[in-house]
Amino acid sequence: MEQNQLDFDIGADKLREECGVFGIYDFDGNDVASTIYYGLFALQHRGQESCGIAVSDTEGPKGKVSTHKGMGLCNEVFSTEHLEQMHGNIGVGHVRYSTAGSSTRENAQPLVLNYVKGTLALAHNGNLVNAPQLRHELEYSGAIFQTTIDSEVIAYHIARARVSVPNVESAVAKAMGKLKGAYSLVIMSPRKLIGARDPFGFKPLCIGKRDNAYILASETCALETIGAEFVRDVKPGEIVTITREGIGSNTEMCFRDTEKEARCIFEYIYFARPDSVFDGVSVYHSRIQAGRFLALDSPVEADLVVGVPESGNGAALGYSMESGIPYGTAFVKNSYVGRTFIKPKQSSRESAVRIKLNVLKEAVAGKRIIMIDDSIVRGTTSALIVNMLRDAGAREVHVRISAPPFLHPCYFGTDIPSEDQLIAHGHTVEEIREMIGADSLSYLKMERLQEMACSRSICTACFSGNYPIDPPAEDIRGSYDK
Amino acid sequence: MEQNQLDFDIGADKLREECGVFGIYDFDGNDVASTIYYGLFALQHRGQESCGIAVSDTEGPKGKVSTHKGMGLCNEVFSTEHLEQMHGNIGVGHVRYSTAGSSTRENAQPLVLNYVKGTLALAHNGNLVNAPQLRHELEYSGAIFQTTIDSEVIAYHIARARVSVPNVESAVAKAMGKLKGAYSLVIMSPRKLIGARDPFGFKPLCIGKRDNAYILASETCALETIGAEFVRDVKPGEIVTITREGIGSNTEMCFRDTEKEARCIFEYIYFARPDSVFDGVSVYHSRIQAGRFLALDSPVEADLVVGVPESGNGAALGYSMESGIPYGTAFVKNSYVGRTFIKPKQSSRESAVRIKLNVLKEAVAGKRIIMIDDSIVRGTTSALIVNMLRDAGAREVHVRISAPPFLHPCYFGTDIPSEDQLIAHGHTVEEIREMIGADSLSYLKMERLQEMACSRSICTACFSGNYPIDPPAEDIRGSYDK
Amino acid sequence: MEQNQLDFDIGADKLREECGVFGIYDFDGNDVASTIYYGLFALQHRGQESCGIAVSDTEGPKGKVSTHKGMGLCNEVFSTEHLEQMHGNIGVGHVRYSTAGSSTRENAQPLVLNYVKGTLALAHNGNLVNAPQLRHELEYSGAIFQTTIDSEVIAYHIARARVSVPNVESAVAKAMGKLKGAYSLVIMSPRKLIGARDPFGFKPLCIGKRDNAYILASETCALETIGAEFVRDVKPGEIVTITREGIGSNTEMCFRDTEKEARCIFEYIYFARPDSVFDGVSVYHSRIQAGRFLALDSPVEADLVVGVPESGNGAALGYSMESGIPYGTAFVKNSYVGRTFIKPKQSSRESAVRIKLNVLKEAVAGKRIIMIDDSIVRGTTSALIVNMLRDAGAREVHVRISAPPFLHPCYFGTDIPSEDQLIAHGHTVEEIREMIGADSLSYLKMERLQEMACSRSICTACFSGNYPIDPPAEDIRGSYDK
Amino acid sequence: MEQNQLDFDIGADKLREECGVFGIYDFDGNDVASTIYYGLFALQHRGQESCGIAVSDTEGPKGKVSTHKGMGLCNEVFSTEHLEQMHGNIGVGHVRYSTAGSSTRENAQPLVLNYVKGTLALAHNGNLVNAPQLRHELEYSGAIFQTTIDSEVIAYHIARARVSVPNVESAVAKAMGKLKGAYSLVIMSPRKLIGARDPFGFKPLCIGKRDNAYILASETCALETIGAEFVRDVKPGEIVTITREGIGSNTEMCFRDTEKEARCIFEYIYFARPDSVFDGVSVYHSRIQAGRFLALDSPVEADLVVGVPESGNGAALGYSMESGIPYGTAFVKNSYVGRTFIKPKQSSRESAVRIKLNVLKEAVAGKRIIMIDDSIVRGTTSALIVNMLRDAGAREVHVRISAPPFLHPCYFGTDIPSEDQLIAHGHTVEEIREMIGADSLSYLKMERLQEMACSRSICTACFSGNYPIDPPAEDIRGSYDK
Repeated sequence: MEQNQLDFDIGADKLREECGVFGIYDFDGNDVASTIYYGLFALQHRGQESCGIAVSDTEGPKGKVSTHKGMGLCNEVFSTEHLEQMHGNIGVGHVRYSTAGSSTRENAQPLVLNYVKGTLALAHNGNLVNAPQLRHELEYSGAIFQTTIDSEVIAYHIARARVSVPNVESAVAKAMGKLKGAYSLVIMSPRKLIGARDPFGFKPLCIGKRDNAYILASETCALETIGAEFVRDVKPGEIVTITREGIGSNTEMCFRDTEKEARCIFEYIYFARPDSVFDGVSVYHSRIQAGRFLALDSPVEADLVVGVPESGNGAALGYSMESGIPYGTAFVKNSYVGRTFIKPKQSSRESAVRIKLNVLKEAVAGKRIIMIDDSIVRGTTSALIVNMLRDAGAREVHVRISAPPFLHPCYFGTDIPSEDQLIAHGHTVEEIREMIGADSLSYLKMERLQEMACSRSICTACFSGNYPIDPPAEDIRGSYDK
Repeated sequence: MEQNQLDFDIGADKLREECGVFGIYDFDGNDVASTIYYGLFALQHRGQESCGIAVSDTEGPKGKVSTHKGMGLCNEVFSTEHLEQMHGNIGVGHVRYSTAGSSTRENAQPLVLNYVKGTLALAHNGNLVNAPQLRHELEYSGAIFQTTIDSEVIAYHIARARVSVPNVESAVAKAMGKLKGAYSLVIMSPRKLIGARDPFGFKPLCIGKRDNAYILASETCALETIGAEFVRDVKPGEIVTITREGIGSNTEMCFRDTEKEARCIFEYIYFARPDSVFDGVSVYHSRIQAGRFLALDSPVEADLVVGVPESGNGAALGYSMESGIPYGTAFVKNSYVGRTFIKPKQSSRESAVRIKLNVLKEAVAGKRIIMIDDSIVRGTTSALIVNMLRDAGAREVHVRISAPPFLHPCYFGTDIPSEDQLIAHGHTVEEIREMIGADSLSYLKMERLQEMACSRSICTACFSGNYPIDPPAEDIRGSYDK
Repeated sequence: MEQNQLDFDIGADKLREECGVFGIYDFDGNDVASTIYYGLFALQHRGQESCGIAVSDTEGPKGKVSTHKGMGLCNEVFSTEHLEQMHGNIGVGHVRYSTAGSSTRENAQPLVLNYVKGTLALAHNGNLVNAPQLRHELEYSGAIFQTTIDSEVIAYHIARARVSVPNVESAVAKAMGKLKGAYSLVIMSPRKLIGARDPFGFKPLCIGKRDNAYILASETCALETIGAEFVRDVKPGEIVTITREGIGSNTEMCFRDTEKEARCIFEYIYFARPDSVFDGVSVYHSRIQAGRFLALDSPVEADLVVGVPESGNGAALGYSMESGIPYGTAFVKNSYVGRTFIKPKQSSRESAVRIKLNVLKEAVAGKRIIMIDDSIVRGTTSALIVNMLRDAGAREVHVRISAPPFLHPCYFGTDIPSEDQLIAHGHTVEEIREMIGADSLSYLKMERLQEMACSRSICTACFSGNYPIDPPAEDIRGSYDK
Repeated sequence: MEQNQLDFDIGADKLREECGVFGIYDFDGNDVASTIYYGLFALQHRGQESCGIAVSDTEGPKGKVSTHKGMGLCNEVFSTEHLEQMHGNIGVGHVRYSTAGSSTRENAQPLVLNYVKGTLALAHNGNLVNAPQLRHELEYSGAIFQTTIDSEVIAYHIARARVSVPNVESAVAKAMGKLKGAYSLVIMSPRKLIGARDPFGFKPLCIGKRDNAYILASETCALETIGAEFVRDVKPGEIVTITREGIGSNTEMCFRDTEKEARCIFEYIYFARPDSVFDGVSVYHSRIQAGRFLALDSPVEADLVVGVPESGNGAALGYSMESGIPYGTAFVKNSYVGRTFIKPKQSSRESAVRIKLNVLKEAVAGKRIIMIDDSIVRGTTSALIVNMLRDAGAREVHVRISAPPFLHPCYFGTDIPSEDQLIAHGHTVEEIREMIGADSLSYLKMERLQEMACSRSICTACFSGNYPIDPPAEDIRGSYDK
């Protein structure tokens, strides 16, 4: 997304509702807190608002959990001292992104709690569409809520189920029968590490191994970072249980229905790190492919193909490969513009876009430029960037977007603004082109999305309006932030 | 308590389980956050570990609560900015003391939550003796606990009751039917401020008024500090409801039984500020009385009566009044030794006692001293102070304690160490005298306690072992901190 | 001072220009940083704005100095970690009070610097009256100033002198030839600890010993706190040099002239801790004496004598002893009102005085009270306190001040407001009495000051206008804060 | 540099001695603090250890300077509140990198001081080779030093010169007569902004303009960021004075000698942002050129050219352009690994390199790779990266370095380790190739450096040992950090 993209690495953006989860169980008894820390580091792009780690010792007193959470990036929240004081060979971690309303320390994850069978720590990525109903139901039976996160709703259902089922994985299964929406879960009980993914497979979750330790992570890049091998993805609808006896997957609890799978295509287009691989498809490859398709479907004569950093770069390279037009770098991004960046005031001479992004005049002057971006949300940032290229002497600026136009809200975790703020809602491509001042503009074709994801079943609701789960009657986004 | 006493103003002490609560409803719609802040300031001696404020606007969107909590003293946790951003004319505040195990930000109060009827904020002072059972019961019906504080147990009972009763005060009443132990509660629902005190009246709670605002506070000193008038005490077992219509007290919900009242005598002896008045008895007066009784019951010839600051001073003055022996100052306390004070290492030449307390040689040299303290716990600090007086040239040191000897644990909030750490357990007064190196030693007589409290019904369990409520089978203190 | 007095223990007051210094040289090679920390703790009342410690190792690489300084109290600025990382057996420390203008971290002491002979660390208490001239002179010969503290001026003179004299103590002596005003200095060179006091002896400085370590400190209470013995005071005009060979005092450099001695009487009346002894006179004793003199010179019939805490208490006790009228406690001070206390707004219902101080109604109701305070500066606080006593039911309030009226500015370190803000300037005692609402008012007589200080030579300029050194032509206070 | 490169954007690296300076004078009287903040943001890559801003009001009271400095990145040190409180239309800023020894807040710049003519604020980039001698000389005439930065030496010389010359720019000129080494200076006197560059032009400094404001900055990218136009570079040896009357450059003070110019080639190769232009040569262009030269001089058959991010990317693109071998992306850099990143312990399974950098398997598997980096320092990181490429399936790895081998220390600001740590010192290229495990290895040829810089006079001492200024007898680097 144009605005998001600029903010991609900087954590200042309040548009996305994304998270990263990580879990590890080391059978050799080694402390895992610092490994979780490095795993979260590799997932930091999925959430910069808050983060947390909870660890326990599977051989120690049952249910003793060490937790540390806080607002900010991993390196702001954790010190060497924190990590050294967290002892335990099993643990979960979380990085969180959220909308402003619920941006409080109370909502930081993992959620750590006592329930009928001791302690539980839970980290969650995704959005439930029926969270408000579930909350109301629970409240009508006397529940209290101390946060506004879905994890608390999920935890309640697990706790209630656990009273009548023989183990925690069965309780997770029973809870999943109630949950509607997108979720990838990592759960630590005193002696078990559990991973679960919703039946649609909206959000990714993979399994890794390093020596005698099993790992669960949102993205494979976290496995690489800590030197673990990729084992396999958790399947949509699957519950994976890691105990001292090894890794198990009870298919009876498995809600799989491959027909229904609906992977979030935005993980490929924008969210994920390019070095991650989801369900067999490399994010890097899918972005290259998107660029190739744009070159095939929307060719234009030009001197240089450039990407808007970072996520536009892959598609730009693909466009260049397919078209033969040289790939180049047109932008320098200031990598220090972080979470606490002081935004310039409206009245000031400085502009947030220019502070984050500068054009390499030398590279673009006198050239016909194809600029690849992954989305246009409101159009304002795109217009500014096109203008910066022209100021730097670009003769022509042809914009290619590595996704179809945004037309519909997402209820599963991608925080797309309401329709009236989407430039593609109510404007033709030609009108948008004029608004952003480009010489030409093309989007990726809808039919290419499936190819981009190597024929995996995907969710395209934000482009097509075809929701894999019926959207809620009212817009639930942010609604229970009181 | 000798150790506590030294620490009284410094917050470094980890022995006491005490808290302070404050609530206010301003009918004129003024913001109350800063008034709560000053109220908590006046109650800071009741808890220095963490504090918090939650406010709401009775005319604003129902259930919007602004909360700020943190570890530390009020002036560490709150800035002008925090207070200015907290808008609302109704609110509650809390200062907390706790044992080390649960000393985490998660346990800071007020507890703010969503339940069936919206939001609730709850601040609590006291200890439930049946908290573990109640937790287990709740867990067996599917509850989850995110803290280890009693307030969460209380909140659950209110939330569950509220499903079937017509209003929040009835829910509080129904919940109180389950709670056993010591509690003074201040509760904010979106449009009501509620105060409740357990039927035994262990912990204090009073009502004040300032212009068109009603106030609830643990001690009257908080009313004075904010310029409010004292209205009356909340009665043991009473539930007071403050709404726009005024202040109400439904006697049907009232669990009062004056026979059973059991005010904590330690509020008079040690916890409370001397300028507070509980249930009609001035703390200052009760300490003066204790001193007078000591003079009557345990007279001794001497040149000077001194108190161990701060809580020993009142009784020392009373002793002087009764005996005619001049009152004086023997100690200078360092008032900067705060919560974050770095304790000297065992190996170092510095001693924690000497850093906190110094003797005025000029005042004591060559004199026979009567030194009044409010308790002897382990005896080590007392021995050090007696020794410091002798080093400064005191010819004799006669120790008088303004309470009977500690012999039994307290389950209602006073964190007395286990019996094996109590010097009075297993030692005669003469043995203790020798251990602390005093020339003579006397304690306040048990029968004087009642007089000290002007014949109010009091709890003397820590001295007598007569518990107003049966103590729990197992020692619950700290037990659910996992 | 009435305002100061309230603020005495709280550090929020910006009126005084006082500091505390501490130095230690341990011949056995033990690390001294934590001892300096505890020493500064005992001197904290002399300055709460900033503090700092610099240590070095006399056996280590010459001139390696570890320094840590910061804004705030000792327990805010230093952590265990800081102290553990500061290795060295010689060191100096400083606590600082200052006027607002120069309240920056740059001005925190000790000043640590490199000069011709290596490193030097310097801590200073006092005010030079010729600092502006000395700065100008130095600037005209090319000096640069990075702070606005006198220590930098002193350091320059030592550094310049050191070029032509054989050792650092001679350089200090030569520098002292230029300095006019009040100063007590503690200086660390790589192998020496030096203490110096101006010829008038305005500010105190004493020598202590603990095992094989010598100590220099502003007050003897710091010696007691760390368990050191008092050796003697540094004499006015004396330079003491502590080296591995022991302690030396070259009388040739000594500018002593006992005729000229001019000890600051305010150290006795107000600044110092009562357990300190200066030049053979106990601060506690001098305050008791002041009270006695008031009782002798300004008797009045009454039921109770009370002090305004803390510094009024000693004189109140003296008054009681002399008059036979019982001593009591009328006020409870909130000891948590610290440096970062959020002052109530003018518009609010809360008052800063009431938040800091509360009256014990029980103690004063129906009584005729003699209230002892150490000064009246502007009169506003005194009026408020008298009024609080009346509100609490006092029948009469007789105010006695344990010092003569303030009439003149101080140029030597006591930050008395300009004359037009002094209530005693232009008002008779009777007028002041009426303004503060007292039934009677008396000040200590001028002729008693000398007696109070046991006939030591003192400076009484702020009362009498007799300046031991000619005051500067223009008011220098704060002038070089640009 | 291989190590540096990885650390380039992260500020954790302790190898480089680089800084960035910024100054602005707004004739319209607008506050400039926030513009300086954004300018420093654009220069943040030049120093991440500490930063600071000093501003003054040319129309306000002469010499009133507001300063804020601190350890850390701009967004850590400055808050909106800080910027809003700094009023003034003239100001200077600084970002600092330094070696560990002097990494203290005392050394943060700008240096703000009082001297004979009022106040001065000074920000400096570069290293003086005769700083120790100058310090000693100054000390022998009585100077004191409170920091270990060259700026203090420079300030002293200006202050001393100012006593006898008519204005500050003449004093700067006179001081420059003494200074030997690399320096670009930005100086604020109450009514003037001055920029100066050493006669060799080691370090860059440029002039910009925005409306009625003149700007001085280390790099042109800072001008772009704040929306200013580039005016020209400050010439080597030039002193530029900006006053209300405009911009002046007195040639009589100018020490220019174009023969002697010696621009640091490492600004082009590594330090500078690619969108900066120095002395007419685009950094981006010079890096593209370096790549082209490598392709011409050291061709090899391969499938893909990749750069080690970030500084290797430009040369990789140049290599691709020249050779026709496709350019691609092989690495994903974690952009969250910042200044406070917790390094993995030696014993842990995690590696710092893998946490910072990951390989895109998809992109490199089965391919012959040309990997372009800008330097090899110790060789260890290069070996790790080559190995990561092989692990990812690269069939061949050909390493090309966009600079000649490091052989000699730099005394002008580039912190190259001592010779014995340089892999190129004592090893042939073939030996290095083997040590890093590459299939082939080539460096940029010495004769290409001149071409790379478009025939500008450059300093190549670190490669050739030909020092433009005689190196000091002893290695001065870090030597006066005591």
